[in-house]
Amino acid sequence: MVNLEQKTAWKRGIKMELTHFDENGKARMVDVTEKQDTVREATAVGKITVSQAVYDAIEQGTVGKGDVLGVATTAGVMGAKRTADLIPMCHILPITNCQVHFEMAPKELAVYCSCTVKVTGKTGVEMEALTGVSVALLTIYDMCKALDKSMEIGEIYLQKKTGGKSGLVENIKKGVQ
Amino acid sequence: MVNLEQKTAWKRGIKMELTHFDENGKARMVDVTEKQDTVREATAVGKITVSQAVYDAIEQGTVGKGDVLGVATTAGVMGAKRTADLIPMCHILPITNCQVHFEMAPKELAVYCSCTVKVTGKTGVEMEALTGVSVALLTIYDMCKALDKSMEIGEIYLQKKTGGKSGLVENIKKGVQ
Amino acid sequence: MVNLEQKTAWKRGIKMELTHFDENGKARMVDVTEKQDTVREATAVGKITVSQAVYDAIEQGTVGKGDVLGVATTAGVMGAKRTADLIPMCHILPITNCQVHFEMAPKELAVYCSCTVKVTGKTGVEMEALTGVSVALLTIYDMCKALDKSMEIGEIYLQKKTGGKSGLVENIKKGVQ
Amino acid sequence: MVNLEQKTAWKRGIKMELTHFDENGKARMVDVTEKQDTVREATAVGKITVSQAVYDAIEQGTVGKGDVLGVATTAGVMGAKRTADLIPMCHILPITNCQVHFEMAPKELAVYCSCTVKVTGKTGVEMEALTGVSVALLTIYDMCKALDKSMEIGEIYLQKKTGGKSGLVENIKKGVQ
Amino acid sequence: MVNLEQKTAWKRGIKMELTHFDENGKARMVDVTEKQDTVREATAVGKITVSQAVYDAIEQGTVGKGDVLGVATTAGVMGAKRTADLIPMCHILPITNCQVHFEMAPKELAVYCSCTVKVTGKTGVEMEALTGVSVALLTIYDMCKALDKSMEIGEIYLQKKTGGKSGLVENIKKGVQ
Amino acid sequence: MVNLEQKTAWKRGIKMELTHFDENGKARMVDVTEKQDTVREATAVGKITVSQAVYDAIEQGTVGKGDVLGVATTAGVMGAKRTADLIPMCHILPITNCQVHFEMAPKELAVYCSCTVKVTGKTGVEMEALTGVSVALLTIYDMCKALDKSMEIGEIYLQKKTGGKSGLVENIKKGVQ
Repeated sequence: MVNLEQKTAWKRGIKMELTHFDENGKARMVDVTEKQDTVREATAVGKITVSQAVYDAIEQGTVGKGDVLGVATTAGVMGAKRTADLIPMCHILPITNCQVHFEMAPKELAVYCSCTVKVTGKTGVEMEALTGVSVALLTIYDMCKALDKSMEIGEIYLQKKTGGKSGLVENIKKGVQ
Repeated sequence: MVNLEQKTAWKRGIKMELTHFDENGKARMVDVTEKQDTVREATAVGKITVSQAVYDAIEQGTVGKGDVLGVATTAGVMGAKRTADLIPMCHILPITNCQVHFEMAPKELAVYCSCTVKVTGKTGVEMEALTGVSVALLTIYDMCKALDKSMEIGEIYLQKKTGGKSGLVENIKKGVQ
Repeated sequence: MVNLEQKTAWKRGIKMELTHFDENGKARMVDVTEKQDTVREATAVGKITVSQAVYDAIEQGTVGKGDVLGVATTAGVMGAKRTADLIPMCHILPITNCQVHFEMAPKELAVYCSCTVKVTGKTGVEMEALTGVSVALLTIYDMCKALDKSMEIGEIYLQKKTGGKSGLVENIKKGVQ
Repeated sequence: MVNLEQKTAWKRGIKMELTHFDENGKARMVDVTEKQDTVREATAVGKITVSQAVYDAIEQGTVGKGDVLGVATTAGVMGAKRTADLIPMCHILPITNCQVHFEMAPKELAVYCSCTVKVTGKTGVEMEALTGVSVALLTIYDMCKALDKSMEIGEIYLQKKTGGKSGLVENIKKGVQ
Repeated sequence: MVNLEQKTAWKRGIKMELTHFDENGKARMVDVTEKQDTVREATAVGKITVSQAVYDAIEQGTVGKGDVLGVATTAGVMGAKRTADLIPMCHILPITNCQVHFEMAPKELAVYCSCTVKVTGKTGVEMEALTGVSVALLTIYDMCKALDKSMEIGEIYLQKKTGGKSGLVENIKKGVQ
Repeated sequence: MVNLEQKTAWKRGIKMELTHFDENGKARMVDVTEKQDTVREATAVGKITVSQAVYDAIEQGTVGKGDVLGVATTAGVMGAKRTADLIPMCHILPITNCQVHFEMAPKELAVYCSCTVKVTGKTGVEMEALTGVSVALLTIYDMCKALDKSMEIGEIYLQKKTGGKSGLVENIKKGVQ
């Protein structure tokens, strides 16, 4: 199921460690005090697979009534802003941009979501992008769960990341734009 | 990829509608004022697929140092409690129990997460369970992202739900405990 | 500017005191421990007056693109749920319903907002309704402030309240639906 | 009711668009990544109109017991800090100052509130100032609602704004200081 | 330094275990689903020891200007309401009352704080009372830290607790009212 | 009980005032707009005194099961990030590091906690460090309160602070590491 090629300047054998733990294995925030403020950007993606009835309801909602994706967009942006409240060791980042987009995939009966976040800061925004996608997809689930309780959220991963020490990171999955 | 059988008292052709929208298609909370307070329970599951290096780091962490799953458990419980803050149309529910568990799947290089939530209330807790799983898995991602930026979160769905009008809902996926 | 008639069972000379202060004038939550759980409902209203350009943009948004009122609806519902976080002496209430509606008033170049909240609880939800209206109108302001910085939010008041000791409270303003 | 003159460098026919929507009309945060960090300041005002009994209670509270305006000041400052949590497309801003002030208007039986916020940042703080005023006035309402349920909150607008691309923006209303 | 007598129905050799961990030692919320809704109340106390200059500033503030204790009261009540957001395994409780009080101790140059919280619920409110005291005392520290950076917060403990399975719990400390 | 020597560049008779109040004694945030962004660091400490049974349970938890201190570490870091939400006049600070550590003191039956926070910003992080310690100790209390309801939290103070106008501030207490 996992079939990712990774093209990245980052994967060059840099010291392998879980930076969120100190030398005694205790959890901690990573110290970014000395890092430079640079422009950083991250895009995460994910999808929710639904029944035909839900798919139709979402699609019609985008044209006329019951705008599921509109509510999910708002929730995704707000969720991205709450990342540091949710993920214990995440830094508080005054993000400068957040965009949530959806794409309907009729053959799969899926809705794809992407979330792009930017910041000028000392650390990256991949967690914000991933959290934005997760909250947006959970919101679709919530809005449609009266129709279908077997929906599945999945394939959430970092698509692209730029800026900071690790430079460009890109995960290419076949079949997903 | 989606292969769910649904055994449910609920799927009996009840009026199909997106209850989160009014007759004009405007988003709203569902009115549960008149519903009974009953015991309700929901279990959601999901997984994160990681590299060998991350898998080993997590596994060792659970025995000696760097307890990734401990932090993720805490984050999952706290995330479940924040559901109404994150998901726009979710009700505020004073949940009475929340359990987050993990299971290591060495062949898949995956960590499975389940979150079970209970409440005595007027509406169910499936969103709390799904949010708990999502936040727990995002936390694993965050704690390990220095080692691997191609991790993937997926297969998040409602495993089981009891109580309330829809009674027992169960989604059986092959190969997942 | 204030021209309210008040039809209310409540205005019958009940002991006049600021219940949010103790006998020494210190702020406190009102003790509702002994009160009954009853169904309570409140509707608050308010409006935002805007320029012609903003009015048109909002109106077009509701039919085609740039759905200002959709985002404001979501924000209003979420804001109502955050009332106890914002208003110091407000009780935490697991509200059972929240509806935000808008009405366009072309002659006034205004958008009217109403927010109705319900709960089965020991105290009323008028603060939740008023907070929902306020956050919804602030969101309209935010979404349109690139076009107009002289918008004005006003006429926020409790329209109707039922349930609890004070029974029916209704404030009638001429000219507002 | 709306009678604002606008003296502003900003109102010079700059491209009229709702910047909170992309080219497809989807809601988004405005991208401020490339903007300069400059000192920005905004003052918003508003008022609450109350009964004589409430007016007297508030006024006495400021001298001896039951300090309504003290609680409302605290709530206003805390509310301004929560702006990005409440208003969906608002940026998280580490504001550097927030002042909430009240003025009693005995002839109108009103309490005027002003909130001034500063930041060194990439975008302005008018939403923080407006949110601070709104939360402060809602808090007055809450603290006094046992005495009067026909209070009205209104005339909330941006009084002055400096810094950033739009420079000085000032809204003059007659009769309000 | 610790000199507590404990008069309690609770200390009767009930099964000793950390209920916040399951049989595998994993952290969890305690399951209170089956417990009765009863009236529960808890009072916690604590103090902050300050310099003479701070002591005088606080004392004068309570009569004329600079109301440190007023702000701390508000913060304490709001903090008590945020307990479930802060303490990972705490239940969300719709508390029905919260009172924060201060007492000046001139000989010790200390300010004592007590916080009493009530709820009709399935579990007790001692964490809410303790959190209310802690946040109130931290707020005093914050408001006075320009004058003194050697203040000390201490002697925070549960003074009294009623309701629920453990019945009356009382901790008597000599010399504290 | 308070026995602090203070070695500090700061205690040199600088103008004594409560900067959190304006000239009329009204509470406000301190205006830090014009201050420089410099690296600032603060360490706060505190302790919880427990029964032998709790002490043993905590100590065993750190080696095998029931990791009280692990949960408390996570809570402390998350609490430090919530400081501006809790303490009314605190600035929002995008802290760049947060470390929570514990030390067991078997003779005293106490657990000592320290929290170190860093930021590159316009104001210091002592409140974040003190809040982190307080929330961590409250979490220990919560996790162990089924075993002992007479635990006491105390001796919370600022141990060390560097950066900013006041330079080095250090509070030395005998007997604490």
